[in-house]
Amino acid sequence: MTTTLAAGLACAMPMATRDRVVLGHGSGGKLSNALVRDRFLPHFSSRALEQLGDAAIVPVDRTQIAVSTDTFVVSPLEFPGGNIGTLAVNGTVNDLAMMGALPCYLTAGFVLEEGLPFDVLDRVVAAMSDAARIAGVQLVAGDTKVVERGKGDGMFINTTGIGLMDSEFQPSPIRVAAGDVIIVSGPIGVHGMTILSTREGLEFDGDLTSDTACLYPLVNVLRAATAGEVSALRDPTRGGVASTLNEIAAAAKVGMVIEEDATPIPAPVAGACEMLGLDPLYVANEGSFVGFVPAHRADAAVAALRQHPLGRHACRIGIVVADHPRTVVMRTRMGGTRIVDLLPGDQLPRIC
Amino acid sequence: MTTTLAAGLACAMPMATRDRVVLGHGSGGKLSNALVRDRFLPHFSSRALEQLGDAAIVPVDRTQIAVSTDTFVVSPLEFPGGNIGTLAVNGTVNDLAMMGALPCYLTAGFVLEEGLPFDVLDRVVAAMSDAARIAGVQLVAGDTKVVERGKGDGMFINTTGIGLMDSEFQPSPIRVAAGDVIIVSGPIGVHGMTILSTREGLEFDGDLTSDTACLYPLVNVLRAATAGEVSALRDPTRGGVASTLNEIAAAAKVGMVIEEDATPIPAPVAGACEMLGLDPLYVANEGSFVGFVPAHRADAAVAALRQHPLGRHACRIGIVVADHPRTVVMRTRMGGTRIVDLLPGDQLPRIC
Repeated sequence: MTTTLAAGLACAMPMATRDRVVLGHGSGGKLSNALVRDRFLPHFSSRALEQLGDAAIVPVDRTQIAVSTDTFVVSPLEFPGGNIGTLAVNGTVNDLAMMGALPCYLTAGFVLEEGLPFDVLDRVVAAMSDAARIAGVQLVAGDTKVVERGKGDGMFINTTGIGLMDSEFQPSPIRVAAGDVIIVSGPIGVHGMTILSTREGLEFDGDLTSDTACLYPLVNVLRAATAGEVSALRDPTRGGVASTLNEIAAAAKVGMVIEEDATPIPAPVAGACEMLGLDPLYVANEGSFVGFVPAHRADAAVAALRQHPLGRHACRIGIVVADHPRTVVMRTRMGGTRIVDLLPGDQLPRIC
Repeated sequence: MTTTLAAGLACAMPMATRDRVVLGHGSGGKLSNALVRDRFLPHFSSRALEQLGDAAIVPVDRTQIAVSTDTFVVSPLEFPGGNIGTLAVNGTVNDLAMMGALPCYLTAGFVLEEGLPFDVLDRVVAAMSDAARIAGVQLVAGDTKVVERGKGDGMFINTTGIGLMDSEFQPSPIRVAAGDVIIVSGPIGVHGMTILSTREGLEFDGDLTSDTACLYPLVNVLRAATAGEVSALRDPTRGGVASTLNEIAAAAKVGMVIEEDATPIPAPVAGACEMLGLDPLYVANEGSFVGFVPAHRADAAVAALRQHPLGRHACRIGIVVADHPRTVVMRTRMGGTRIVDLLPGDQLPRIC
């Protein structure tokens, strides 16, 4: 399915991508990577930035903090399971948690479009407050700007998070090694398909509700179950599980093999994806992570995750190999294999 | 002029302000304050947030950091003296510097509109890189989102800054006391009138070039000249000098008297304001600060600031008094007095 999509997008990509921003630059796939590589990195040489992690790790006094920033532009603003405010808190908190940090502080920058109803704003702010309380983070600074009608889309929210690093628990893509087992902590594709079906007014068999959640407690469960032996963690948001695996394979210079049969794709997601010709591996998730653990820790890790409400469907989906570095391969149900590449353009824009 | 504007805006304010966001909510005046007070603060009870400073001060390990966030939505994106990238770096760095912090780290969150030309993006990113180098801050984390054509306005940039606090230098509005002298470090109204004249294609006598600059070195000059006796500092951006004085008068529960004759308003700003019926006291500045120092430090402070290129036009503009707490009064050139209030609505939207 990936190949088909890739071919279709390659043909559809206009010449204008050469000198202008296109939607695919926000997809989390190859165009996003090219934008960062070609437009941003040449100007900024900070070591923290070059790590391209979910968050930067920088020193403060005698300790280290993790810093992460994310702007949320999801359309629609409200959807089953949450709203842009829920996402804005959980998304940034999760980016910190994926670095092994304890999420502590959050800032929020709002861009409001003239005409935004206050009742929408109130629900979003209330959701942020709830999500922050659940995550145990403090909102410490905020900013609000207003743009004219037609110059925004209701509301955009940037959140920047600060977390405390623990010198004894620093999962990182570069620690991933051949032999590690690849785990997902929950079902795949739920958030993205919820947004898409809400946006397009589609109805599918079975309910679709965003899985947006704070993953910090689940990280702690994994840490405890593995005695801290977690090579890497990442939440597969924009670009989905496929993009996350590719990014980590590239950073760690390893190959990966995943089993199609093992990937936990709920029936409504599978059905909706099939109907729309989408590959669930590229669909955004907001309430599950991909974890890499040494093989001897894998059983205990999965068993422990399954005891937690957010990890009930945790499972192994594959392994890290020394062969075919930087390439992710899937063993299909039919017994074949296919390469799971980065998306060349946009599958689902405005998903978070 | 304030009163006239106020009356005009009060009449023009539509009923819809009751249940929707209007441009005035982004003005930095009374409506902005009401938005924060009524929509955000009830949901967030963090002590840091309630201080409503330019930045929050929070503990990390055994030290304190300052954290500030700001989203830049200036229109047009490029203007004489800089672009949205210059502002995005200097604005947040200055917010940290106003707290007495050493600016260290910056994050950048971009919202790009589909169709934005790469050459504009490149100039903005290059300007951010230059401004960060001059300010001595490191860009450590970034994020880019793309929205469809017509759902943004070229580019919005959020920057969040982290600075290190120094326990021996913590200027704060609540330290301001009767007898303090009010100083401005440079000319008033330059940035705002540059943006407005660029946006509207107006030409005035004399060149208008934004004063956007990193003010950290100038803060250090002031600190050295006063042996650290600086009660408060603030950069009068959105809402201008008038809003800054009012906010600090309210926080410190003091009155203020400023001298119209003493306010350093460059001729092109004065001319443009007169032509457009605007009050320069409400126009945004990006390269000067308002400082409050004890009277016995004022002469040395002004003399030292004037030795620095950014402080050449530094001067006293007034004093803090115990009378009429929370009220800022101006002695006019004509020998009368008038109250300088917060703007009720929007004077100049999309200025930073």
